[in-house]
Amino acid sequence: MSSHPPQPTVLNPLQTARKLAAEFAETTSERDERGGTPKAERDAIRQSGLLALSIPTQFGGIGANWSETLNIVREFAKVDSSIAHVFGFHHLMLATVRLFARPEQWQPWFEQTARNNWFWGNALNPLDTRTVVRKFSGWREFSGKKSFCSGASDSEMLIASAVDEGAGGKLLIAAIPSGRTGITLHGDWNNMGQRQTDSGSATFERVRVEESELLLDPGPLSNPFACLRPLIAQLHFTYIFLGIAEGALEEARQYTLKEGRPWFKSKAQHISEDPYILRHYGEFWIGLESVRVLTERACAQLDKAWNRGPNLGSEERAQLALSIATAKVAATRTGLDLCSRLFEVTGARATHASLRFDRYWRNLRTQTLHDPVDYKIQELGEWALNQKRPTPSFYS
Amino acid sequence: MSSHPPQPTVLNPLQTARKLAAEFAETTSERDERGGTPKAERDAIRQSGLLALSIPTQFGGIGANWSETLNIVREFAKVDSSIAHVFGFHHLMLATVRLFARPEQWQPWFEQTARNNWFWGNALNPLDTRTVVRKFSGWREFSGKKSFCSGASDSEMLIASAVDEGAGGKLLIAAIPSGRTGITLHGDWNNMGQRQTDSGSATFERVRVEESELLLDPGPLSNPFACLRPLIAQLHFTYIFLGIAEGALEEARQYTLKEGRPWFKSKAQHISEDPYILRHYGEFWIGLESVRVLTERACAQLDKAWNRGPNLGSEERAQLALSIATAKVAATRTGLDLCSRLFEVTGARATHASLRFDRYWRNLRTQTLHDPVDYKIQELGEWALNQKRPTPSFYS
Amino acid sequence: MSSHPPQPTVLNPLQTARKLAAEFAETTSERDERGGTPKAERDAIRQSGLLALSIPTQFGGIGANWSETLNIVREFAKVDSSIAHVFGFHHLMLATVRLFARPEQWQPWFEQTARNNWFWGNALNPLDTRTVVRKFSGWREFSGKKSFCSGASDSEMLIASAVDEGAGGKLLIAAIPSGRTGITLHGDWNNMGQRQTDSGSATFERVRVEESELLLDPGPLSNPFACLRPLIAQLHFTYIFLGIAEGALEEARQYTLKEGRPWFKSKAQHISEDPYILRHYGEFWIGLESVRVLTERACAQLDKAWNRGPNLGSEERAQLALSIATAKVAATRTGLDLCSRLFEVTGARATHASLRFDRYWRNLRTQTLHDPVDYKIQELGEWALNQKRPTPSFYS
Amino acid sequence: MSSHPPQPTVLNPLQTARKLAAEFAETTSERDERGGTPKAERDAIRQSGLLALSIPTQFGGIGANWSETLNIVREFAKVDSSIAHVFGFHHLMLATVRLFARPEQWQPWFEQTARNNWFWGNALNPLDTRTVVRKFSGWREFSGKKSFCSGASDSEMLIASAVDEGAGGKLLIAAIPSGRTGITLHGDWNNMGQRQTDSGSATFERVRVEESELLLDPGPLSNPFACLRPLIAQLHFTYIFLGIAEGALEEARQYTLKEGRPWFKSKAQHISEDPYILRHYGEFWIGLESVRVLTERACAQLDKAWNRGPNLGSEERAQLALSIATAKVAATRTGLDLCSRLFEVTGARATHASLRFDRYWRNLRTQTLHDPVDYKIQELGEWALNQKRPTPSFYS
Repeated sequence: MSSHPPQPTVLNPLQTARKLAAEFAETTSERDERGGTPKAERDAIRQSGLLALSIPTQFGGIGANWSETLNIVREFAKVDSSIAHVFGFHHLMLATVRLFARPEQWQPWFEQTARNNWFWGNALNPLDTRTVVRKFSGWREFSGKKSFCSGASDSEMLIASAVDEGAGGKLLIAAIPSGRTGITLHGDWNNMGQRQTDSGSATFERVRVEESELLLDPGPLSNPFACLRPLIAQLHFTYIFLGIAEGALEEARQYTLKEGRPWFKSKAQHISEDPYILRHYGEFWIGLESVRVLTERACAQLDKAWNRGPNLGSEERAQLALSIATAKVAATRTGLDLCSRLFEVTGARATHASLRFDRYWRNLRTQTLHDPVDYKIQELGEWALNQKRPTPSFYS
Repeated sequence: MSSHPPQPTVLNPLQTARKLAAEFAETTSERDERGGTPKAERDAIRQSGLLALSIPTQFGGIGANWSETLNIVREFAKVDSSIAHVFGFHHLMLATVRLFARPEQWQPWFEQTARNNWFWGNALNPLDTRTVVRKFSGWREFSGKKSFCSGASDSEMLIASAVDEGAGGKLLIAAIPSGRTGITLHGDWNNMGQRQTDSGSATFERVRVEESELLLDPGPLSNPFACLRPLIAQLHFTYIFLGIAEGALEEARQYTLKEGRPWFKSKAQHISEDPYILRHYGEFWIGLESVRVLTERACAQLDKAWNRGPNLGSEERAQLALSIATAKVAATRTGLDLCSRLFEVTGARATHASLRFDRYWRNLRTQTLHDPVDYKIQELGEWALNQKRPTPSFYS
Repeated sequence: MSSHPPQPTVLNPLQTARKLAAEFAETTSERDERGGTPKAERDAIRQSGLLALSIPTQFGGIGANWSETLNIVREFAKVDSSIAHVFGFHHLMLATVRLFARPEQWQPWFEQTARNNWFWGNALNPLDTRTVVRKFSGWREFSGKKSFCSGASDSEMLIASAVDEGAGGKLLIAAIPSGRTGITLHGDWNNMGQRQTDSGSATFERVRVEESELLLDPGPLSNPFACLRPLIAQLHFTYIFLGIAEGALEEARQYTLKEGRPWFKSKAQHISEDPYILRHYGEFWIGLESVRVLTERACAQLDKAWNRGPNLGSEERAQLALSIATAKVAATRTGLDLCSRLFEVTGARATHASLRFDRYWRNLRTQTLHDPVDYKIQELGEWALNQKRPTPSFYS
Repeated sequence: MSSHPPQPTVLNPLQTARKLAAEFAETTSERDERGGTPKAERDAIRQSGLLALSIPTQFGGIGANWSETLNIVREFAKVDSSIAHVFGFHHLMLATVRLFARPEQWQPWFEQTARNNWFWGNALNPLDTRTVVRKFSGWREFSGKKSFCSGASDSEMLIASAVDEGAGGKLLIAAIPSGRTGITLHGDWNNMGQRQTDSGSATFERVRVEESELLLDPGPLSNPFACLRPLIAQLHFTYIFLGIAEGALEEARQYTLKEGRPWFKSKAQHISEDPYILRHYGEFWIGLESVRVLTERACAQLDKAWNRGPNLGSEERAQLALSIATAKVAATRTGLDLCSRLFEVTGARATHASLRFDRYWRNLRTQTLHDPVDYKIQELGEWALNQKRPTPSFYS
């Protein structure tokens, strides 16, 4: 790094992201093997200014809407879905404070984030209830453990949750500096996919949380607008799934064209004319196109809903939830099929470890387990049969 | 029919179509059993004014774009896919003269169609080369047979084709009155589905065709704009497939809710809560939503391409072809799955002949065989792998 | 019929069945259209002696085991799955009295059936509880309705059930002459498939049932051996599903070879060399072979279990139940796919009504709804995950 | 190891194999990570006596038939499919000399193998034509490269092939000591799956091959009996695929039962009662049972064909080829589905690297690419449609 602090001048965020993605692509296989925190890449993102992507311009940000923001998540996911995940979650965390807290809270956070290129991480996991809260006068104390804390390592800010047993098990959510006393991030994420998402565990030992750091007004999932938060999370996953599949297809395609050879029983001169190879690619295309149009439609609806602000109605929110759920299931299924079947268009030699083509399947398989696809399908069935709208939760 | 010619006053074509569809629905099962020409229904369409739907207002038509026109095909297809087919083909025939002939030709045909509520039928089938042409001074003579002449019965005008063996097997296409001397429509369509489309055979016995009836300038598939013709046909099929599946789902849903009972091993009180029933409906929804967004996107692209007129470029036409092919394959697969699987959400009693729920599968299965889905997938594979654009033909 | 009673001399039952099947094949389409009772065909079966197929030789029967018996069901199903169903159900009814009643009861019934070529029909449907029983001294009275009475029309004997409300809703099953006073068979079966199975409704108006006609000792599902009854029913369905699919494939194959033409974009000279056509046939083969080996294994196990008689243990019965359930689900899925997809290897002209190729799908779709495949899969999941054996019921 | 050479006393090969498999299971994840040659495990196999498994007793072997031999491959594959592969290939190499060479050649090799616990490796890959042969008086010289030499490292004997350009590109196959001068095994196998199969490359630098080492009489694929060689290879793969899937299912099951928790929206108390979890397990069961019966049937046919010896007819060989191809495609598809979908019954935590559950998919995905499933399906289609028997080759 230069001793003079870089002055990011982001003229076109998508171009910036593509440039970064091209750099990340060079080391993605090696980093997939290594796991751990992609410190250099996180710093490159910091310097790029893209951490301010979704922050409105009046707070010093780039002012991108969700279509622009999530498209950049997709660009990253094509080559490095770990970075895509923590980058998207950063913007989800910003949306979380925007939706759950008062302007006096989130506006300074937005400004500081834009000014200082803060990276936000996640320690919210609402299904892990081991962290509890103790109430004191003017502040609270969080103590306990938390799993699946994606992007918490090497972050400046954290969104953390704890169960308030005094208030009937209510979930309290706070935004706090990651470095606060009592917080330990264990760096223990070592999974078969999404290996550089740092989705490991954290321990809170009597962590002091100020009242002003609690996201209480309007609070979590308190109204249709606040209920956009889980939908942004779900759509963020969908963009990652889509990006992974698109990246896999592109890499498979290059391999087929450059390295593939027709099977000795094929009548084709070149593998690119083999009828079964063409069939696979045709099916990949149909699957991906379906996902693309479903995903982009959902995101256009999200942008519209976001712009409605507190006026957002529950019916509109429900329609958005259905669109996102549909896109997510389609992206899950299409992507898993493609990432496994791609080897049938590349052949045995494409299993060489140096290519690391299995990382697409490993990353997608890991990330698609965030919440079960079976219950997402059930939710859609409730709508299709009973016209029952999805019940807002941290997963719907 | 009244002796006073009806004066159609179509204020809102979609409402008109829905009203007609509701009427058709009452007799659709009975007519499916009977087959033959739905004369009363065709006359009701004539009187509704909807035969002028796609005709621009300056020629006395309603001036609907393709999205509006094909949406009405879909409305009809929900309850009666035979009528949807001949209605859509009527507009395809109008597009055919618009795209293949000179304004001096198609403008009067448009005006007369709008004024007299002419129904156009099809006798074009380019793969059936049994009808040949003989050239005379100032006119031609068509002789031979032709199969799959959808909507030819009870039509006022026909689009017919013949092979010009003198010109190296070139296909000549003409627009002629259906009642012209020498034309025999055999009324021999008796197939397992699409039973009232009159897609039977025709014989041409020395049928005189004037030069002014030949569609020679610019002629068939002569430029990217003229090459929209097969794409409109393909998208028309897609809307029918979608409409059939939507109609099937709606009928299944009503049956499940009103007549269904949970299996004795289910823990659900009502069948609408059974997890496997919900799963099927969820999957139906995901499939249909994918088809809907793909189809509507393709149609928006078609409207745009249509408005480009002769300026339409081959690249833009190719992108449209890919969108339509993608939607068509998705509609085929989703629809066939839904129309067969719907019985698993309705149960054994839903096989009663009076319900005639099998007609959805029979209609869709029949119509989806128009051209092979395998080669449509291959075409998409050529694009996805080799970036090879679809070669325009009467099927692409 | 000759005035001299025919003396059936069945030397080789399979050959006899094939000869009959070839005759039935000639009229199967016409009878599919007509529906109703196939009286002539039922009489031909009577005269063939095959109604004594599963009856042991000491009672005048042919003494076939279940593999031989159900293979003949499959032979019939290839060309006429309605006849296959009532023929197989006839033998299921014989097994029912064998398993649920005392030798003093079933032995005379077996002898009379073999001697007189009785046809047994079904009025058992245990989920239809509208028929109730009233107890009198030495006899009972059955009154009420019953649906899905396959093969009851034109039968000599009926297996009927009624709910004994006095005994806590216990199901009483009896074997009675079909012509007994008070029994009305409504001949009202008119469904989209299995159209000549006479699976309509019956009314019992104070029908007198003797104690000696009740199947009480050991009674329904009273021990592992008696619990073979529902398994025979389930395996019987599996053989029908398999036979339908095999018949469909054979008819498709003949059509492809004789009538099929390669699509104009195919590089194949003959359709039989087209790579996509070959792919479909390859997949059909894989599916059918799986079903064949699963089905034949299950039937070999059934024969073994049957020979164990009252010594049959519940573990052995459970293993058989699992084998049959596995085969049945595989036959359902493979068959439905094949019967719908076969049109993709035959093409649009194969939808002509005279061919009636849709009857395979209609028959299979109807028959596969007997009990839900979803709960059969669940049952297998209970075993695979929890090692929980299927609970015997009339469907497991 | 004891200083006294162990005297293997193999009383029950299956028990011996299970004991070994249990030992291998303890280190399989670690070795999957490490790759390379599993020297200790190979030596344990040597000491177990199982390298003589398929060798007839008269040559000092155990005399197992193919069902017994391949079942042990399957046992190994459940826990370690790399070892399964090289162990099975060892027996395939023995079969190769048995089928392609004269008794004076293979009998001593069999005896020495049994006596000295030789491990045979593979350097045959017929599609890699870079190794060529030069003819000298009484001997030949092999020079060139060879890829995919599974099990060559740490082997005592090799089956190698070279192209005889002088004889029109004929493939010459020889059995030679792995340590012969001029042979270099590069130990360069580093692929995403089957990581301890040592399937890397070899170089032959002027390697002298004696006439007596050439497999010329009857020679490769020279008659129906010799043509069993590729079928044994194909069936060997099928057993590996089956074993991998069975091992994956068992591990998933243990995890579900011990670690799984129902999703918060599930009505089930325990995950083992969740309807969607049960559905997955039910489907896994159906798939695996199909593969099991297809595979075991094929192997029974192989044993029968093997016992026919040189009397084996080409029709019988063809039927066996079809059975094996069917089983192999079914095993490929079922296995890939199961190994990817198993995570949906175990959940996100099951992606932890310490569990290494992804190795099932990675191993299966790698091994199933040996030869393309698309062309195997085509081969079956040729039979199903055209009754064309598979053409013997090294892959059919």
